[in-house]
Amino acid sequence: MSLHGDYDSQNIFAKIIRGEAPCYKLYEDDDVLAFLDVFPQSYGHTLVIPKRSAARNILEVDPGALSKMALAVQKLTRVLVAELEPAGVQVAQFNGNPAGQTVFHIHMHIVPRYEGDTLGVHASQKADAAELEKLQARLVKRLNG
Amino acid sequence: MSLHGDYDSQNIFAKIIRGEAPCYKLYEDDDVLAFLDVFPQSYGHTLVIPKRSAARNILEVDPGALSKMALAVQKLTRVLVAELEPAGVQVAQFNGNPAGQTVFHIHMHIVPRYEGDTLGVHASQKADAAELEKLQARLVKRLNG
Repeated sequence: MSLHGDYDSQNIFAKIIRGEAPCYKLYEDDDVLAFLDVFPQSYGHTLVIPKRSAARNILEVDPGALSKMALAVQKLTRVLVAELEPAGVQVAQFNGNPAGQTVFHIHMHIVPRYEGDTLGVHASQKADAAELEKLQARLVKRLNG
Repeated sequence: MSLHGDYDSQNIFAKIIRGEAPCYKLYEDDDVLAFLDVFPQSYGHTLVIPKRSAARNILEVDPGALSKMALAVQKLTRVLVAELEPAGVQVAQFNGNPAGQTVFHIHMHIVPRYEGDTLGVHASQKADAAELEKLQARLVKRLNG
């Protein structure tokens, strides 16, 4: 998919927002939703999406929604760092297939990086559900703690 | 450098903000500065930094400054897409050495991606000054057009 085109309301993130598909939710308010990536690049890989802006990418997203996403990314990054103590954190937002975008509802990746890590941007393996649940519980507890 | 530590006011971006070091400036207002990366990963690689928040990374940055950075990234991405017509755009923000951060003043990368590109995150070659000047002129013209 290129940078230009129509928003597909059947994309997986739109379904998650509507409650038609499950997610390992970490945080939600009126504007944003944060959940664990099920194809994680590292332990704690988190996604943040706007709930009210039906936008495919940064070109289209409502500025207010973008601003709220950025603040939620900061909030979640702080939680991930406090709980998982990574050596670094990559924040990334991909627009268009050639940039690595695979779901066409705008999202920001938060990828904790640990010593000895490689810096790849694409994961291919689905995480274990029990692992994700355990991680979700740790992070939600930290977020509310 | 780890995620935690003191802000070094002699870092290159702090010098650029103070006018003590040059840059290929694309946009500036009271809150943000945008300029071309001199070690570009692709044609049009742009950096956006906050001017008033002496922060090393997303953990430390003032939320208002973060929000303004995000909006400036949107503005500049639109300009880059309009002028250079890339196939995609990566937006990235690195925190800590192990995540790829090399200058410890928070910054967001905007990296246009073209068909046939590789998706590497580290450039090693300094761009030609005349090329950068030409590109700067094109983008500033588009920004003000």
